[in-house]
Amino acid sequence: MITKTELKHFASLSLKKHRELLDLFLVEGPRSVGEACSAGAPVELVIYTHVFADSTAGSGLLSELGRRGIRCESVSGRELASLADTVHAQGIVAVVRRWSSVPADLLVPGEWGSLAVALDAVADPGNLGAIIRTCDWFGVDAVLLGRECVDLYNPKVVRSTMGSLFHLRIAEGADLPASVRTARERGYTVAIADPSAGTALNGGNLPPRLLLVFGNEARGVSAEIEAAADLRLAIPRFGRAESLNVAVACGVFLWAFRLREE
Amino acid sequence: MITKTELKHFASLSLKKHRELLDLFLVEGPRSVGEACSAGAPVELVIYTHVFADSTAGSGLLSELGRRGIRCESVSGRELASLADTVHAQGIVAVVRRWSSVPADLLVPGEWGSLAVALDAVADPGNLGAIIRTCDWFGVDAVLLGRECVDLYNPKVVRSTMGSLFHLRIAEGADLPASVRTARERGYTVAIADPSAGTALNGGNLPPRLLLVFGNEARGVSAEIEAAADLRLAIPRFGRAESLNVAVACGVFLWAFRLREE
Repeated sequence: MITKTELKHFASLSLKKHRELLDLFLVEGPRSVGEACSAGAPVELVIYTHVFADSTAGSGLLSELGRRGIRCESVSGRELASLADTVHAQGIVAVVRRWSSVPADLLVPGEWGSLAVALDAVADPGNLGAIIRTCDWFGVDAVLLGRECVDLYNPKVVRSTMGSLFHLRIAEGADLPASVRTARERGYTVAIADPSAGTALNGGNLPPRLLLVFGNEARGVSAEIEAAADLRLAIPRFGRAESLNVAVACGVFLWAFRLREE
Repeated sequence: MITKTELKHFASLSLKKHRELLDLFLVEGPRSVGEACSAGAPVELVIYTHVFADSTAGSGLLSELGRRGIRCESVSGRELASLADTVHAQGIVAVVRRWSSVPADLLVPGEWGSLAVALDAVADPGNLGAIIRTCDWFGVDAVLLGRECVDLYNPKVVRSTMGSLFHLRIAEGADLPASVRTARERGYTVAIADPSAGTALNGGNLPPRLLLVFGNEARGVSAEIEAAADLRLAIPRFGRAESLNVAVACGVFLWAFRLREE
């Protein structure tokens, strides 16, 4: 049984201040809940509807959660809707401890491997989620989120990562100017994506140890980070758009990095 | 002066059936309204607030609209909000005739140039908008929207195109299986983006006359179109994500196409 008070408590996690206070966040839908579970994320509780439990996918996932000893509680469709950010919660929501949060100062460059991505004030939740999913696809070793980024545990960010949130090492609240300095000291090249840069990205001009920085949707990368970077690169333009969506630009840069290895 | 009845009439354009009935749609924000105007789109009316008119950017844009003989009406902030899809309308909304709508059968392959993109049941408005913006950046000659795609004039689609809606030739309601057949007859290679394909996209294996097809976010491309295609290509994966966001995948494919020309 889950009480009305508990439900209200978890519904408050739609707000950032409550997520920070309780150190918990919500994950919606069978796919993301399944990813959280199989990645070993600290799932505290799973809340589902009877309709979900009666579906084929639902009964499989719920037995898996049960095998792992995770508390599962059934509620009405209306009660579930009070927790979910969208109408597409698809019958299941998990309450997860914010374990993926890596303090920025623990993420020393020696652990970055060959490819890290830093985000400076990315503001749109869908963009942040799509970037994390893209970083996961291209095997990025670490993602640094600067202090001005939208909250990683915003329900729309969590949903847009499509489970990739649970696959990557992500540092929140990073002091990006300091990270950039440290990265350069340790032999990383720091490159900034900037549509107005004079140098064109091509299929092979990215160095082997790279920290790629993407900026805010409207303002780009901050002046301080721009001044500290080694490279400013633009994706060549063939039409009339003023810029690319930041997640699309991230995909192009990451593929360009992997192309050099082919 | 604009009457309450007129305002109500235009507010109804948030719904697809009214956009189709009236053959009009709404464009929000100074940037998109400016792009519509400079691209010569048939702007019927512009509605703005006093606060917008008093801003530097606002007075410049309003005089330009006036010079072009476009009817401009001022309203209160609350009245403007009744028209806008977001809280970010930034003081200006335009009512535009749906001119960019090119009937699919007019878009004959001979007019496609070297690069066209077809979308089969892309459902998310933000994705459709980002794809159109990406097609504009990479100089795509034509975009075909299949019948199952989200409405091109959905306010979130319009906003996400960042003005690129006004730069491209876009055919709505295309019969994609027929388009694919015609394209092949005219010497186009039809390629499908499919994360499960055995052939990897690389920086140079795309043919010179190309129709690229992207599918639904969950289901991919329909079986009929898949069967008719010449190539199924996957963006190589280096991590654990199941797939890429469709707009991100589109960016990577389009850059790959342009790489072959470098």
